Amino acid sequence: MKQNIGFIGTGVMGHSIAQHLLNAGHNLHLYTRTRQKAQSLLDSGAIWVDSPAALTQTSDVIFTIVGFPQDVESIYFNTNGLIPHLRPNMVLVDMTTSSPDLARRIAAAAVEQQAIALDAPVSGGDKGAREATLSIMVGGDEPTFKRLLPLLRLLGCNIVYHGPAGSGQHCKLCNQIAITGTMIGLCESLAYARKSGLEPNHVLQSIASGAAGSWSLSNLAPRILNNDFSPGFFVKHFIKDMEIAAASATALNLDTPGLKLALELYQQLAAAGYGDNGTQALYKLYGDV
Amino acid sequence: MKQNIGFIGTGVMGHSIAQHLLNAGHNLHLYTRTRQKAQSLLDSGAIWVDSPAALTQTSDVIFTIVGFPQDVESIYFNTNGLIPHLRPNMVLVDMTTSSPDLARRIAAAAVEQQAIALDAPVSGGDKGAREATLSIMVGGDEPTFKRLLPLLRLLGCNIVYHGPAGSGQHCKLCNQIAITGTMIGLCESLAYARKSGLEPNHVLQSIASGAAGSWSLSNLAPRILNNDFSPGFFVKHFIKDMEIAAASATALNLDTPGLKLALELYQQLAAAGYGDNGTQALYKLYGDV
Repeated sequence: MKQNIGFIGTGVMGHSIAQHLLNAGHNLHLYTRTRQKAQSLLDSGAIWVDSPAALTQTSDVIFTIVGFPQDVESIYFNTNGLIPHLRPNMVLVDMTTSSPDLARRIAAAAVEQQAIALDAPVSGGDKGAREATLSIMVGGDEPTFKRLLPLLRLLGCNIVYHGPAGSGQHCKLCNQIAITGTMIGLCESLAYARKSGLEPNHVLQSIASGAAGSWSLSNLAPRILNNDFSPGFFVKHFIKDMEIAAASATALNLDTPGLKLALELYQQLAAAGYGDNGTQALYKLYGDV
Repeated sequence: MKQNIGFIGTGVMGHSIAQHLLNAGHNLHLYTRTRQKAQSLLDSGAIWVDSPAALTQTSDVIFTIVGFPQDVESIYFNTNGLIPHLRPNMVLVDMTTSSPDLARRIAAAAVEQQAIALDAPVSGGDKGAREATLSIMVGGDEPTFKRLLPLLRLLGCNIVYHGPAGSGQHCKLCNQIAITGTMIGLCESLAYARKSGLEPNHVLQSIASGAAGSWSLSNLAPRILNNDFSPGFFVKHFIKDMEIAAASATALNLDTPGLKLALELYQQLAAAGYGDNGTQALYKLYGDV
């Protein structure tokens, strides 16, 4: 059934996600900070609106996927934002990787207006977004999650409900925390390979399919050895995720020395001017390798 | 062609490896510290000898796979060890994960007696040893490596030559360094999942097949959630490997903060009495999770 869907955020991920919703035949109402980035979606039939507030008048479900928690905050809570203009029974779905606290605040604010907000961050990167194979981690009202499943299935293939508002964000942070360690191990391993005079490609041949194997080793190590530090996933966004995770872990009274070390190393990397590189650029910290 | 093969070390890995050599029809001469551990191999036709020195009189190729570098040192360099009794053209193959320096010393000492020593540590664990699917990382004389390939192919399926003596050990250390980071990320991720109130099995469902995916996440996380801390790979052996790697990295003038952190955490774990657990026991450090 054709639905009226709103969409905010047409970065690398958002663009593909919005396109899938359009392709499925839904009416897509679109707002984004830089209209130019939405042009190809508008050319494919998306309808431009001038503010988040305006979206609430034309859409029954609104997806958002932007950069930082402060962007989420302003899209939802500004005078011209979503929350002050919600109509009853609307559903908001934030796919930004953001803070569990903010997700809970948004959900509570939506409920006050007889609407519902889910947090549904994703993993799978630009490729997963393009191929609609994202992993989608959902928190919030469960009946609403179930009602939304047909839409979510247009976007991903591994869709899991994790519990009350904020749970999707918590799960995404688990994902990012696991990656922090793997990235450090990967970069130190390759740096050690080079320093000890090995041919790193032969090392990958020996270790990539065994107990040291990981998605990062298979996908990012070859890029490093090819001197390709272009972003699949930005250093600056990874830092944002680690900051949220570290703050959340502290609030939960959990010590995470590995996450803290990763955050420090990536902050050093950004301070050295590599914030717009891909996360594999961590390798550059390991000296004259 | 039937060969006279010597073998030292019948731990979990060595036992399976020796069995494959026997099964292929070779004469297997066996020495090990605890004869009892070799009994089933002796029952299958292996021939007992009383010392490493005695092995050199009956064998043309000798495999060794023991616990610690000091074990390797005594097996090779003691008065009753291999090196003082080498005959010309013999080949020694140390499969212990040990220090690259020691591998170079052994290779040099072998050459002095017109013999040859390779370092050939493995990964793949008890399962890989049992199923002859080990990854074997070889350093030392390349023509000898090539001559030995038919024997190595009885034991593993991913056999890579890495360069001069010590290179196999260097590659194995790359393997272990990569694992250190992954293990920290994995344990902190699961600890965070529990602390934030998520169902960790659902978290694995969301993250195991994506960018956070790893051999460890797929194979060790389920054991952790099952409260199974039995050793696939011993904490005390992992510490040994990390100590060798950290010392070697320092000698190469490479700073490895992630490896250092992992070593500290695993040393804490061993100090708390968990040295005979599997490496997944690192999870126990993360408080009251």
